[in-house]
Amino acid sequence: MDTPPITVRPIGYVRRPQNACTGLEELRQAPAEILVHPELVPGLEGIERFQQLVVVFYCHRVRGFSLRVHPRGDPSQPTRGVFASRSPARPNPLGLTVVSLLGVEGNVLRVRGLDALDGTPVLDIKPFSPTFDQGTEAA
Amino acid sequence: MDTPPITVRPIGYVRRPQNACTGLEELRQAPAEILVHPELVPGLEGIERFQQLVVVFYCHRVRGFSLRVHPRGDPSQPTRGVFASRSPARPNPLGLTVVSLLGVEGNVLRVRGLDALDGTPVLDIKPFSPTFDQGTEAA
Repeated sequence: MDTPPITVRPIGYVRRPQNACTGLEELRQAPAEILVHPELVPGLEGIERFQQLVVVFYCHRVRGFSLRVHPRGDPSQPTRGVFASRSPARPNPLGLTVVSLLGVEGNVLRVRGLDALDGTPVLDIKPFSPTFDQGTEAA
Repeated sequence: MDTPPITVRPIGYVRRPQNACTGLEELRQAPAEILVHPELVPGLEGIERFQQLVVVFYCHRVRGFSLRVHPRGDPSQPTRGVFASRSPARPNPLGLTVVSLLGVEGNVLRVRGLDALDGTPVLDIKPFSPTFDQGTEAA
């Protein structure tokens, strides 16, 4: 692709006690922390009023991608386009998850529901908004 | 911030007939097109089965940001941290919206609900997933 590149910078990182490659469901069940860059802490003001946040992260362990993937990595499933899947191995390996906010202390957000490994760069945090994020059906 | 930069590349662009800076609500009501880079079209296979997609885009018109913002740009509202707002003027000006898929033809997705201006670079398209995207309340 000859499209011009866009540069983003992590606003923080995921920290979680275990770095084992546990399954998706274990990652989502276990609480995790997001360490926000200390310079950006004023940007967290008032975030504690939200129960749910959208976290955008960069799947830094991903190397390369295929345009056709097996859904959920299950080879018994017929392939589909990567944009019709949630595979992290995609042209831009961006992850996107709605998490529950458990607490905020200084530059540390404690969350549950985050399917990101220890050390994952976080690019953005937004309050969940029914206007922008509400879906009704995923087929 | 001294965090290492991350480079992403647009997978396509938003095209919409009018480029006037209309309000958010007008943008969301009007259908829009996403032109996917022709090389990536195989990645769209099977996307037509989804009624709702999550679109991640880069708000390319944004210049700079404040860590504290007035919600919805309303100066009568007390400021809050930018991560407790959906302001597009944020450290990484990433936009994120659940849209309805109206149709797919070749490399063109017709969608409704997209609050992005003509020419906006699109970074990712994912099927809406209740597992990752379902929120129940935003307070």
